[in-house]
Amino acid sequence: MGLMSESLTQILIPVAALVGIGFSLFQWFLVSKVKVSSGIGLENGYKDRLIEEDEQEEGIDSEEAVAKCAEIQNAISVGATSFLFTQYKYLGIFMVVFGGIIFLFLGSVKGFSTKSEPCTYNKGNLCKPALANAIFSTIAFLLGALTSVLSGFLGMKIATYANARTTLEARKGVGKAFITAFRSGAVMGFLLAANGLLVLYVSINLFKLYYGDDWEGLYESITGYGLGGSSMALFGRVGGGIYTKAADVGADLVGKVERNIPEDDPRNPAVIADNVGDNVGDIAGMGSDLFGSYAESSCAALFVASISSFGIGHDFSAMSYPLIISSMGIVVCLITTLFATDLFEIKNVSEIEPSLKRQLLISTVLMTAGIAMVSFFALPSEFTIYNFGADKAVKNWHLFFCVSIGLWAGLVIGYTTEYYTSNAYNPVQDVADSCRTGAATNVIFGLALGYKSVIIPIFAIAVAIYVSFSLAAMYGIAVAALGMLSTIATGLAIDAYGPISDNAGGIAEMAGMSHSIRERTDALDAAGNTTAAIGKGFAIGSAALVSLALFGAFVSRAGIKTVDVLTPKVFIGLIVGAMLPYWFSAMTMKSVGSAALKMVEEVRRQFNTIPGLMEGRAKPDYATCVKISTDASLKEMIPPGALVVLSPLIAGTFFGVETLAGVLAGSLVSGVQVAISASNTGGAWDNAKKYIEAGASEHARLLGPKGSDAHKAAVIGDTVGDPLKDTSGPSLNILIKLMAVESLVFAPFFAAHGGLLFKWL
Amino acid sequence: MGLMSESLTQILIPVAALVGIGFSLFQWFLVSKVKVSSGIGLENGYKDRLIEEDEQEEGIDSEEAVAKCAEIQNAISVGATSFLFTQYKYLGIFMVVFGGIIFLFLGSVKGFSTKSEPCTYNKGNLCKPALANAIFSTIAFLLGALTSVLSGFLGMKIATYANARTTLEARKGVGKAFITAFRSGAVMGFLLAANGLLVLYVSINLFKLYYGDDWEGLYESITGYGLGGSSMALFGRVGGGIYTKAADVGADLVGKVERNIPEDDPRNPAVIADNVGDNVGDIAGMGSDLFGSYAESSCAALFVASISSFGIGHDFSAMSYPLIISSMGIVVCLITTLFATDLFEIKNVSEIEPSLKRQLLISTVLMTAGIAMVSFFALPSEFTIYNFGADKAVKNWHLFFCVSIGLWAGLVIGYTTEYYTSNAYNPVQDVADSCRTGAATNVIFGLALGYKSVIIPIFAIAVAIYVSFSLAAMYGIAVAALGMLSTIATGLAIDAYGPISDNAGGIAEMAGMSHSIRERTDALDAAGNTTAAIGKGFAIGSAALVSLALFGAFVSRAGIKTVDVLTPKVFIGLIVGAMLPYWFSAMTMKSVGSAALKMVEEVRRQFNTIPGLMEGRAKPDYATCVKISTDASLKEMIPPGALVVLSPLIAGTFFGVETLAGVLAGSLVSGVQVAISASNTGGAWDNAKKYIEAGASEHARLLGPKGSDAHKAAVIGDTVGDPLKDTSGPSLNILIKLMAVESLVFAPFFAAHGGLLFKWL
Repeated sequence: MGLMSESLTQILIPVAALVGIGFSLFQWFLVSKVKVSSGIGLENGYKDRLIEEDEQEEGIDSEEAVAKCAEIQNAISVGATSFLFTQYKYLGIFMVVFGGIIFLFLGSVKGFSTKSEPCTYNKGNLCKPALANAIFSTIAFLLGALTSVLSGFLGMKIATYANARTTLEARKGVGKAFITAFRSGAVMGFLLAANGLLVLYVSINLFKLYYGDDWEGLYESITGYGLGGSSMALFGRVGGGIYTKAADVGADLVGKVERNIPEDDPRNPAVIADNVGDNVGDIAGMGSDLFGSYAESSCAALFVASISSFGIGHDFSAMSYPLIISSMGIVVCLITTLFATDLFEIKNVSEIEPSLKRQLLISTVLMTAGIAMVSFFALPSEFTIYNFGADKAVKNWHLFFCVSIGLWAGLVIGYTTEYYTSNAYNPVQDVADSCRTGAATNVIFGLALGYKSVIIPIFAIAVAIYVSFSLAAMYGIAVAALGMLSTIATGLAIDAYGPISDNAGGIAEMAGMSHSIRERTDALDAAGNTTAAIGKGFAIGSAALVSLALFGAFVSRAGIKTVDVLTPKVFIGLIVGAMLPYWFSAMTMKSVGSAALKMVEEVRRQFNTIPGLMEGRAKPDYATCVKISTDASLKEMIPPGALVVLSPLIAGTFFGVETLAGVLAGSLVSGVQVAISASNTGGAWDNAKKYIEAGASEHARLLGPKGSDAHKAAVIGDTVGDPLKDTSGPSLNILIKLMAVESLVFAPFFAAHGGLLFKWL
Repeated sequence: MGLMSESLTQILIPVAALVGIGFSLFQWFLVSKVKVSSGIGLENGYKDRLIEEDEQEEGIDSEEAVAKCAEIQNAISVGATSFLFTQYKYLGIFMVVFGGIIFLFLGSVKGFSTKSEPCTYNKGNLCKPALANAIFSTIAFLLGALTSVLSGFLGMKIATYANARTTLEARKGVGKAFITAFRSGAVMGFLLAANGLLVLYVSINLFKLYYGDDWEGLYESITGYGLGGSSMALFGRVGGGIYTKAADVGADLVGKVERNIPEDDPRNPAVIADNVGDNVGDIAGMGSDLFGSYAESSCAALFVASISSFGIGHDFSAMSYPLIISSMGIVVCLITTLFATDLFEIKNVSEIEPSLKRQLLISTVLMTAGIAMVSFFALPSEFTIYNFGADKAVKNWHLFFCVSIGLWAGLVIGYTTEYYTSNAYNPVQDVADSCRTGAATNVIFGLALGYKSVIIPIFAIAVAIYVSFSLAAMYGIAVAALGMLSTIATGLAIDAYGPISDNAGGIAEMAGMSHSIRERTDALDAAGNTTAAIGKGFAIGSAALVSLALFGAFVSRAGIKTVDVLTPKVFIGLIVGAMLPYWFSAMTMKSVGSAALKMVEEVRRQFNTIPGLMEGRAKPDYATCVKISTDASLKEMIPPGALVVLSPLIAGTFFGVETLAGVLAGSLVSGVQVAISASNTGGAWDNAKKYIEAGASEHARLLGPKGSDAHKAAVIGDTVGDPLKDTSGPSLNILIKLMAVESLVFAPFFAAHGGLLFKWL
């Protein structure tokens, strides 16, 4: 037994979660002090006058601008809420149907028998009936799904609450705006991390009331939580991704390319849809996604632990190690946030990106110490971990290394992503330079950059896998994934900061605020592009580790001893699995393309038929564009969703667990490459364009200004990158995770009844 | 023992090879009857008057046109020859150095001992010393390398001999031109297939003089032949690919996009380099590539057979089954060719593509019967095949199924490729349609098309693998690969037909021939784009099977019993291996991009500084552009080449055979997807552009004509596709094959001394 008693663990975890929620609410309170309703007065919460002298000099009527901001914010918020509620109707149907499938498949494993069974791993003891596992897995699935939806929804609410406030704060300087955007990101980060932990903790304790001593069954059922989280995340990411990029691509193609009006110009009919999209895609989708990763890595670790000595020895504190790590993460991130909001002040545009990068470094260093503490107090000094039928002797400092290497691998991935997507370094500048010879070379260089950017992350992941696998088998991988996600609150904060700043810029443009304000929000946004890419890097890196951990748990639960590439069943799974990310990307990219075509036609139609629109005398019909994005995304999210959800079911049912294992391994090793390269290519193109627009260096001015041939080529690259970086790329990590967790949940069924086709032949 | 005696086998194989060479020479003779030197007279070999009435009416001076054609042909031939000889200097150095490495590594396995050793598989017998294997592997490597170089060189010579002749024949109608182009392709196809078979056959018999009864050692050494073939193919494909695309992209970006002059316009300074590139990249590179595949699949099959009952029972005919299949293939292709050149006549442009497609179908049907005959006569009715330490009982009709399924899978891949890259079907038309909204949607749709086009080929490959693996283990895979390549002569003929027609069109444009002739060569060329894509599909499909067979042989030779994904050593190999195709593609695409930038600057410089160039009064400086392509390709082929050659050496030496096995599996399952999608995306963009240019349908005319916005967008897509389809895509199948065959050759060394890093840790 470790040094921490069960009762201390039972106190510390919920306390950490509540502290996280409290901190989040406090940040929200601080953000809410920035007033957007113009009626209340000209003061904000800090008692500074909102309207500065130079603002009035520029002839912008601030009263009116504030009112305009409030109005736009409201339109975005209403649009996003309405889309999400429409989407939830579809998701609700999916949840009921898929919940039913889980119950039926798992229940049928032992013919819906209510008799207790001998345990699989803890030999000699009696475990709860398979029917109970079917019921509780279904409940856990529903809980995970609801928490995931809630996470995305809250994230969206916060973001739409914060964007106009960031715009208004930008009038007081870049530092104030930065703090508002960052605080709002932190609200989302802490709320999600703490909420995910709390629901999981409460569920475990409630399930325990029934399961009692049967920890094997308890944690088997809990894996449904991960499945629920990820399946909602899939639809959130795909649907939101199609929504946002259809609007974005459509708005850009007509507005920027054909009509030569700026981004986020209120005359563009698709502009509201574009801003709504940022919130439902980048914010809600990403929130669900990272929540899913967190839930899955926790479930994978808990499941493996439950069939190891922790579970068999009923050591609750050691068993809860993954949850305690997450609790520590909340505390560490809380301290880290203070460095950004209170200890340092941003005075200059050039300090934004370093400040965000510093957040990553600080949280990583502090967390390393935190992991050491947790590993020392919560774990016994020596124990055994289940390793595909054998027991592996592990020491507590081994686990410290496993978690830490995951954490640091995340930092390496984050920094590499930054190098390849920030316009402060050579790679993006080279891409920008290639615009001299037109769009074609820009696309070629961008694709090459994306391909190249996978090298270091893959080596980082490989090292993390090798070390953690060697030290503590599949449990090591699971906790390494948790390590990468342990600073999720900070990661999400800097990630959500991106779209919030992007929206703030959009609102500034739409409200017709002065050029200097737009410059400040642009600077926030450029840093946001990079942090969004970093966030995606984390999401993908952790997804790779999580999937591998889930894969290991699946293999254990399906009773497979080896997954031998030299057997035809496994190899065909491997090659077909490696193909799935391509199939999936083809679907999502084509969806964005088709939806964008429709949007382009609508925007063109409005420009051609609404008199006075180009001159700003008439208002465009925003609602029709919102409807096109909504309809397209809801319709188009179904086929890729079905591909991901059905592939493991078909492979497992008809081809059996070995082929399914091959499919999982293949989609993992192939999908992670496609995902990283897609995200980074898109991020690099976006920032290459921004590099030319900003014209901050001799070289950039040579390529610019806006409207030059090189800039036009850069806009084409940016548009191509949109679906890559915001739709297909980030959805792919859900593909690999979801297929793995689904296989894990259905493993007993596949093991009992799977492989029909080979049985028939 | 089978029904065929050893002496019959010893006669039939060389006879088939000589028949193939004879047929090839005969086709050459027929092509040579078309005279290009204008001095000889106005008649060609068919006694038809070259100058038709309508030709003179159009006011083209035929005497002058013929002279011009001869001159251009000569320039292309001289340029291509000079490039290849320069390249061979580098390759010569590589051959010597790498031959030395092979000798040293393999020699060191038993410390350069000259003592005979107990055999590994044929227990109880004595085998030749490891030093002998080192020497003979090195010799085989050099033989393979020389044959590969010779194949590429001869292909190039034939192509540059045929292109102007095709142009001239186009004056007599599309049918005559088609026959000339197709015959020339057949010269190359038969020469390569027969030559490869003959050299392999002779080598085996010569090696036998030393090895005598030690078949294990004999066929182990012969695997060096495959390594030699593939390593030359790698440099040929990469170097040639960079050469041709730097010139092509550079020529297009300035000529078509900036200056608005047609493709292949003689005023474009890069036009000769572009045409030279087609011959050194598409022809010489591809010839080396397919020769490599053929050599490797033969070697893989022979090696597995030698440690199976064929080898142990010293059944030479059964042992030579792969060679007899190839012999039969030559005969079948010979008959198939007659269908295109003599039995049917092309009278109409629309008959070209069906005629080429029919070639595939006819050869496949005939070959299926041929395989049945060979399997019945050459094989004993029952025998055992080595299967990772165990023996697997196999019947002769099992092998018939293995070879046939490979053959038919090739047809499925070929037809799928045609569907996705021909502008007669929806996918390419959709891509063309997306040009309405500009280059960005064109690129998005094109990428999505490429991703989607992997689905069916992967399923075809998976089925072929499952069936052949289940029936005859790794030997089944090897002969399935051979089955896919058994109709290589026909495959190469229709493949080489593409660049020859492309060049013919270029020469027509440059020689200033009439519009109607250019229309005919354009029609030949459009069909050629599709057949080139089909050829690449075959190359990739067979590479996948070949690599798997080589992988199996490597695993057998390295003494590994399982390649378990659940071990960390294998898994990190898998994920890093899956990354290598991306790294490699990043290098090659960036190389093309950089070389194209240089080319663009040179072409712009010439247009700006040479007075009268645009008006056609001054000649451009072709030589400088040729030099830029040459220098860039030679310099830039080294890093990607080093990556491929060094990866297995590093993985095997430092991480050991398990990790290397993971690397091979990972690069195979990931590389095949990247390769297929890259080739098809590029082919589709090219034909989408041609679709708009040809304006053959209502829809196409809506998008066109040349110079419209949609057409400009299509040109950008085409340019992006160039490095994808002609440089990185087709090089990737060499990457996966070469790494596998290299691992196989070095397996004894890795097994004895590998895994240094894990030994130290």
